[in-house]
This record gives sequence, structure tokens and C-alpha cells, in this order.
Amino acid sequence: MFYTLFDHLSDFPGARLFTYLSFRSALAFIGSLAFALFVGKHLIALLRRHQIGEEIRELGLEGQKQKAGTPTMGGLIIIAGTLLPVLLFADLSNIYLQVMSITTIMLGAVGFTDDYIKVYKRRKEGLQGRYKIFGQVAVGLIVGLTMWFHPDIVVREHVTEQNISTTVEHNQQAQPAPSFRFAKTAQTTIPFVKNNEFDYAYLNPFKGKTGEAITWLIFVVVVIVVITAVSNGANLTDGLDGLATGVSAINVTTLGILAYLSGNVIYATYLNIMYIPQSGELVVFASALIGALIGFLWYNSYPAQVFMGDTGSLTIGGIIGVFAILVRKELLLPLLCGIFFIESLSVILQVWYFKRTKRKYGEGQRILLMAPLHHHYQKKGLHEVKIVTRFWTVAALLAVLAIITLKVR
Amino acid sequence: MFYTLFDHLSDFPGARLFTYLSFRSALAFIGSLAFALFVGKHLIALLRRHQIGEEIRELGLEGQKQKAGTPTMGGLIIIAGTLLPVLLFADLSNIYLQVMSITTIMLGAVGFTDDYIKVYKRRKEGLQGRYKIFGQVAVGLIVGLTMWFHPDIVVREHVTEQNISTTVEHNQQAQPAPSFRFAKTAQTTIPFVKNNEFDYAYLNPFKGKTGEAITWLIFVVVVIVVITAVSNGANLTDGLDGLATGVSAINVTTLGILAYLSGNVIYATYLNIMYIPQSGELVVFASALIGALIGFLWYNSYPAQVFMGDTGSLTIGGIIGVFAILVRKELLLPLLCGIFFIESLSVILQVWYFKRTKRKYGEGQRILLMAPLHHHYQKKGLHEVKIVTRFWTVAALLAVLAIITLKVR
Repeated sequence: MFYTLFDHLSDFPGARLFTYLSFRSALAFIGSLAFALFVGKHLIALLRRHQIGEEIRELGLEGQKQKAGTPTMGGLIIIAGTLLPVLLFADLSNIYLQVMSITTIMLGAVGFTDDYIKVYKRRKEGLQGRYKIFGQVAVGLIVGLTMWFHPDIVVREHVTEQNISTTVEHNQQAQPAPSFRFAKTAQTTIPFVKNNEFDYAYLNPFKGKTGEAITWLIFVVVVIVVITAVSNGANLTDGLDGLATGVSAINVTTLGILAYLSGNVIYATYLNIMYIPQSGELVVFASALIGALIGFLWYNSYPAQVFMGDTGSLTIGGIIGVFAILVRKELLLPLLCGIFFIESLSVILQVWYFKRTKRKYGEGQRILLMAPLHHHYQKKGLHEVKIVTRFWTVAALLAVLAIITLKVR
Repeated sequence: MFYTLFDHLSDFPGARLFTYLSFRSALAFIGSLAFALFVGKHLIALLRRHQIGEEIRELGLEGQKQKAGTPTMGGLIIIAGTLLPVLLFADLSNIYLQVMSITTIMLGAVGFTDDYIKVYKRRKEGLQGRYKIFGQVAVGLIVGLTMWFHPDIVVREHVTEQNISTTVEHNQQAQPAPSFRFAKTAQTTIPFVKNNEFDYAYLNPFKGKTGEAITWLIFVVVVIVVITAVSNGANLTDGLDGLATGVSAINVTTLGILAYLSGNVIYATYLNIMYIPQSGELVVFASALIGALIGFLWYNSYPAQVFMGDTGSLTIGGIIGVFAILVRKELLLPLLCGIFFIESLSVILQVWYFKRTKRKYGEGQRILLMAPLHHHYQKKGLHEVKIVTRFWTVAALLAVLAIITLKVR
């Protein structure tokens, strides 16, 4: 709103600052951090008064009792803390920002309904699985279709180092030389191959008109799978104080850096990564989300005064998935969001192995003492905080590794 | 050693990689991380067998008893974990690296003696204050004199954006245009002024030959004060599990980024910060130290299996001080190492106020419930882990702020 306002009041002193991505990102970060710290405090008190606290899954783990009574749905703080600064400081006419905002609102609604049923209807299992999946698929469809059909979503093909304008901050305006071609493609980024680029169209055995329709389908399916996987991955990771919050903050920072580089014609060219016009505006969104997560961590770190609940984890996971797709880095997610990936894998393997052994020997066996992985270490006697600190560390190392892979060719 | 070896065996396949700063920094990081994780584990067991654990200061704080029996001197892991990879992968003929290595060994020796007296001689107060200060002053003298007299330590004056070579990775070799002048100066960086530069010579009222001698003295005194302050600041901060380790890791990362930018003629010119030839090699040192700190944090995070002791905190603090001086960013330290600064300030104010009120009213009063600051929050009932997480967060925010100030002009 400020952004739009200042756009029309360009003779207002200081209005020019608002054209700078870095300035607006800084404001978004400070705004969301302040919101989460100061407004969040009162929201937590409010949640506490209205809830008797989330029903804690009975795991026979130490220190579990003391968690009863901690209010949940703290994700509301993260969602509001992100959307408010975005509304104020971001360019709302930007398609990437519109996609992110819709994702946040839709998944936030799904997560909130889930928490609401758990807390107020006292049904421990919450929203039925199929409704959750339905919400994630709907978001996936919207994102996939928008990316396929919206005219503003394009990628620059054949990046070379010639004819690059030297403006850096005004990267959105920098016009590439006419020899470049902006195209709607199903291209994405994978490490260790030439140019780091991969086109989903390669997966398509059909050519011609039919082929095009099928590439579209492949792309939308990939989008749905990625969103569902990351959303559920974040959901599974959210089991120890500060774990999902800290890991998400690390992941979003990494994605924010990638968006900044991808949306800047000079950096993208220099690093030889895909240049995606207008995607730089996503940095404002990422900054707002990072600020909200850090502010939330202030209260969510051990011992937690509030949990994010599914309102938080489903939404943040979905946001991370969609963000990665928008900057065409979704195939880096197993590394970039390594913790979500490993946690999900631990659950899948545990269930698969249990079922397999049950069918074979009549009695189910387990690989881990408990799934998801963080509970395995808890059962092994590691303190909750030690597990969280170590998972954060691993998440940071994997994020750095994911960025480095882009330079390895 | 590898570095020097490959320098002579340049036809060895892969040897060329060792000329890349980024490659050697990555190796140093991985090497020190692996050392701290795998060798550190056994060193901790060894320390545990040889110590009955550091005498814990009786503070009447919750959870304090359980800390008795935790071995100290863990700083040895950080020191060895840093020096070994530096020995293998860094250019030992580089003067900046030599200064850092001498600093590490000297302060490590002081800290170790202190811990040794505490643990084995069972004298709680450890090494007498004056010997500690003597060690810090000695390091300050060596660093100050080396910076003043060594021919390799120069700064490029009058940075403009013209005539810059386009090599990036081989920044050490990039020759600036002859119009630039490399000079021995007492220049440093301060934010919010023109060019962000400040010369300690300005503080000197005398001109001519006498003036030069006095500028030298001013510079050495500043160096000694900075090293002593940061070394003691880290020492005071080291009071909660993982606090000093995590904060140091954040600070060293920030300084490593600054060294990379300052030592690279292209980035330094683009960002208009001081270009300091050869200082890029410090990135290898910073990477090794960051790896060692993260590896150590694995065991030092709550609940700690080992403490760094004065062996760690005095050394790391001194390293951070010297590093900041070498990249001419020492006046940014109150922001960049904000946590160390605030913790020191809390002790100074507490003591000053107590003495003042005692002289005035006959009875000493306190500002904080307890100093250093982290104990104040503990007394207020905050959990140790919550304080540590919040201090980490604040440290990260201040580090980002310190970097941003360089762009504000």
C-alpha cells in the first residue's frame, strides 16, 4: 500500500527510496520482526486465554508433561507478521508476490481449520487427511497453472556474459540485449549438469501439440508433489521447541538469496544462473517471513511459550515449496530443505519397514526407536535442545552446500 | 603444507585448484569441522578422565549443580581444529596469516595456563589478572608493530571504479591501475562518514617527525585496547552453554565475509570499501575457525558435554579483535561483536554503580540482579536455553546491521 501510494506520489521526499528492493526488504524485515515481537506477545496471551493448549501426543518422552498448556496456532503470528509488511512495502501488482500471498492465505486457512478442530472440537486427529491434501493440491494447481499461463512469468534463455547493463539496484528495469529471448518454459535448475538447467519437457515422450499439453501436465504434477511434500515435511519436523521455526528461517534465507540473485540480471549472468525477470520482488516476501520467523522464535525457542501448530507448519512448508518452484530451484529442495526431507524420509521408511516386516514375520519391526527422526534421538536420551541445535547446524550446512552446488559444473 | 607443496608441484593434476581461495577455504572449513566432530569427541573423553571438572562459581542458579563434572579446556579442540587446516591449506608466507597464527598460539597459552591452574592446582581464581593482561598486551604489541612496520601490510588509497581487472577468483594477482597508491597508513573504517574511512593520524596533534612517532604510539595503544577488550568480552560472555561458541561463530562469519570483500579488488571497489591486498587469505583462517566452532558447538550446546574454558574464550576473543584490526574494521566491533560489548558493559556498569552507591550511601546497590547480563536474565527466571537463543539472534541481527552500515553513506 505504501509502495503503491509512493508510486503515485513520486515527488514526496524519500519516495524514491521505495523503488529500491533492498530498502523495501529491510523495511519488511524490521516490520515483521517488530510485529512478531510486540504484537505476537499479546497474541500469545490471547491464545493462551482461549485455549487450554494443544493435546500433546503421548510419547512417553521426558519433559512432555510440562508442554501441556502451551498454546498453539502461533502460526497466525507468522502469517500476519509476513502479510502485513508485504501489503505495505511490496509491489502487489507483481505476479510472483500474488502467487505467494495466495499460497499463504490458502494454506493458512487449511492449517487453521486443522488446529481449530484439534483444540476446540477436542478431536486429536484434526482435519481429515484428505482435506489437507485437497488444500495442498488446490494450491499446487493454482501455482502450476499460473506459472504456465501468466504472461509475466518467463525465463531468460541462453545467458551469456555480453551486453549486460551495469545498473545493479534497478535490476528490474535493466533491459537485456535484444539477442536474448524471454520464454515461457518448464525449465528448472539442477546441479552438476551443463548450464545447471533442466527442462521438464525432456520427460515428455510426445512431440507437437499433444506434447505441449502433456508437458503442461507433467509440470503441474511436479508442482503439486513438491508443495505437498514440503508442506508435510515441515509439518513432521515441527515436533520440538524451535525446531521447525529455526530450520524454516534458515531455508527461507537461502531461498531469499537465490531469489535476489535470480532476479538481478547482473548477478544471474555473472553466476550463470537462470535470470528470472521480476522475481527479485520475492526478496521482500522472504525478508518479511524471515523477520516473522525470528520474532516467533523469540517465544518458540525452548522452553516454548507458544507452538506454531499446523497453522504455521503446513503454511510455511507450502510457502517454501512454492517459493522454490517460482525461482526454479525445486529440485534442489532435498538438499536445501534437507531436514524436512530427512524427517519425511524417516517416517516413510519407518512405516514401510514396519508394514513389510509385519507381512513377512507377522510382527512389525522398526528401524528407528521412533519416527520422525528427532523423536528417535530423544528416545536415545539426547536432550531436546541438543537435537534442535544440531538439526539447525545441519540445516545451515546443507543450505550452504545447496548454494555451492550451483557453482560446481 | 599442502599449499606450499602444491606450489612447487604445479604439474600435479588438481594442484591448480589450490590456488583458489574459495577451494582452500572450503577444505579448511570441512577439515576443522571434521576434526572438532571426530577428534573432539575423543579429546572430550580424555579431558573428562583427567579432570574432575571445572569448579563452578556458586551463583545460586537453577540447574547449576548438574554442570559440575563437565570437563573444561575444550578450547583446545577449537585451537587445534583451526590451526591444523590452516597449516595444511593456507599460504603460510602470508603476513596476515602469520599474525593470526601467532595470536592464536600466544593467547591459547595464556588461557591454557589459566585453566590449568584452576583445574589442577584447584585455585579458583586461576592465573593472576596481571599475567592475563600481560599476555594480551604482548599480543597487542606484536600485532601493532607488525602492522606498522611489515612491508606487506598496506592499504590502497583513493578507490575509484576505473581500470579494474575482471578476474575475480584470482583477486590476489589482479593488478590495480598504477594511478592507485598502496600506502602504510593508520587508516580504519568507520560508518556514516565520507568514504567510511578514518585515519588515527587525525588524533595526533603533532606534525612532522615527532608526529609520526606519536601516530605509531596511538595506533599501538588502540590495538592493545581492542585486543584486551574483545578477549575479556568473550571471556565474560562464556557463562551459558553454547553462548560464547555460537556468538563467536556468528562474529567470525561476519569478519570472514568482510575479509573476503576487502581482499578482493573487484568487490572492494564495487562496494567502495578499503581494498587490502593479500588480506583475502584470512578467509581460510576464518573458515577453519568457523568449522571448529560449529563442530565444538555440537558438544557445547545445552546440555554441554564440555566447556571451552579460558583456553577457548580468551583466545577466540583475541582472535576476533586481531582479525577486525587486520581488516581495519575494529571500530565496528561494538556493533559487530555487540554481545561481547554489552556483556562487558553490564559488568563495568554494575561494578561502577555498586562502588559509587557504596561511597555515597555506605551500602552498595546494583543495577542488574547479577552481572554479566546473561546471569541477570537467569535470575529473572528465564531458562538458560532461551537466553542463549535470544542472544544468538541479537548477535546475528547486529552482525547484519554492522555490514549494512558500510553501505550507508
